[in-house]
Amino acid sequence: MKTVVAFQGEHGAFSELAAHMYFDSGIEILPLRSFDDVFRSITRRRARFGIIPIENSLHGSIHQNYDLLQEYSLKIVGEIKLRVVHALLVNRRVALRNVKYVYSHPQALGQCETFLRRLKGIEAIAMYDTAGAAKFIKEEHRTDAAAIASLEAARVYKLTVLRSGIESNHQNFTRFLILSKKSIIAKTKAKTSVIFSLKNVPGSLYKALSVFALRDVNLHKIESRPLVGKPWEYVFYLDFQGSIRDEASRRAIDHLREITSYLKILGSYPEGKTIARAAP
Amino acid sequence: MKTVVAFQGEHGAFSELAAHMYFDSGIEILPLRSFDDVFRSITRRRARFGIIPIENSLHGSIHQNYDLLQEYSLKIVGEIKLRVVHALLVNRRVALRNVKYVYSHPQALGQCETFLRRLKGIEAIAMYDTAGAAKFIKEEHRTDAAAIASLEAARVYKLTVLRSGIESNHQNFTRFLILSKKSIIAKTKAKTSVIFSLKNVPGSLYKALSVFALRDVNLHKIESRPLVGKPWEYVFYLDFQGSIRDEASRRAIDHLREITSYLKILGSYPEGKTIARAAP
Repeated sequence: MKTVVAFQGEHGAFSELAAHMYFDSGIEILPLRSFDDVFRSITRRRARFGIIPIENSLHGSIHQNYDLLQEYSLKIVGEIKLRVVHALLVNRRVALRNVKYVYSHPQALGQCETFLRRLKGIEAIAMYDTAGAAKFIKEEHRTDAAAIASLEAARVYKLTVLRSGIESNHQNFTRFLILSKKSIIAKTKAKTSVIFSLKNVPGSLYKALSVFALRDVNLHKIESRPLVGKPWEYVFYLDFQGSIRDEASRRAIDHLREITSYLKILGSYPEGKTIARAAP
Repeated sequence: MKTVVAFQGEHGAFSELAAHMYFDSGIEILPLRSFDDVFRSITRRRARFGIIPIENSLHGSIHQNYDLLQEYSLKIVGEIKLRVVHALLVNRRVALRNVKYVYSHPQALGQCETFLRRLKGIEAIAMYDTAGAAKFIKEEHRTDAAAIASLEAARVYKLTVLRSGIESNHQNFTRFLILSKKSIIAKTKAKTSVIFSLKNVPGSLYKALSVFALRDVNLHKIESRPLVGKPWEYVFYLDFQGSIRDEASRRAIDHLREITSYLKILGSYPEGKTIARAAP
């Protein structure tokens, strides 16, 4: 039986591409409608793993997924960073001069603004999903339209790639997390993610960061989200270098418990590779 | 001549209500289409002030406005915190039993989910704006529909308030910032906002926070946003207690310059009042 990996979106979404890059082969892909569905499918053992975007280098964090990491009790077991390459996809025998409409997710349309402006008289139309846009022009046999989506979407929907790498800023990466019910033990170059909220005392955030600084544990990222029901108080999400099995990290976490009113360890996992070139 | 205050949205939006609460009377309201338009209108002196939502106690920060604070050179001159009270609005002589459709912004529909579920067989329809939904049912003379919007929207569009306070969680506050071209000097209970990015050295965030902790300067909030073009590096937005005129704050900022590669002071302004009850 193949390992089931859940993701949000249509077949050909960037999350599916990330799943293939991370797991190599031998997986069964489970496309779901919402991020909430992804978390639920792992919790209920419909999928062994899930893959979710957590952060984009241009647009920032996907806050909904941060909130879901707190709500559910899943573990982070890996990560992968993928360069976002947008392509202009059309049905067979459609040339650029035939294209009157371009369908895609609003964020993708925005990221390809310079390219779209050069094609004069084209109407950009927002859809809920990049892969969904590819699916749509395929199913409707549109000969007057193109979709902006991944090369993976071109493969899935058998569309022709008219142009590739049409995004304005090539420093466009998305970081994905791999989730599971069970935690793993990272053996090399580990990274640990925790969630915590602070006791209401002066300098508490500074004290929380000091537990790492005093032990020379490097921080990767800090993110804050509102603490629901307590206006202007926050939950913090912190990624740091090292495994929870390391002496320094273990002591830092013990120390952190003294300062926090809530603390959850999301997992220690190998730091993710960056895939700069997305093969179709 | 009246002071012009710009905001994003239709007449009757929560931002307009916040403007009236903040400025009392004697202002001329300028409704604009986007947050970008609000920043631009102040920069080009079409409006003397602008009012923007920056944070909601349930949904978190409005990240687009954080990004615009960095992009434009405006100053924060004040803030106000407003309790979000949602009301069910209808045209005259429409009773609850006539309502088949409810129009509002998706976030407002979500916040009133418990209330909507109790009204069986009602279809919730998403619109771009709460006040826009109120305007829509008014202009279309709908007798089968209601809008979820503010009491201010009821007043502006002369609609009847069928129910008020229909949001599931009453701990629902939005914090607004007041922007201007010129900074002010806060005299009482000041708060200061700064933006910075860090030099790429270990423990740099910890060192940045230490400049405040070592001087007993309390932090209100920290927010991070991606540094565009430098994947996995961040810009930080920090609010702290005190005025930039205070000795401790001034020295903390001087110290902060040693650690940062970029630093911008957004303003020192009086800490905002919380308006718990929104009068119509």
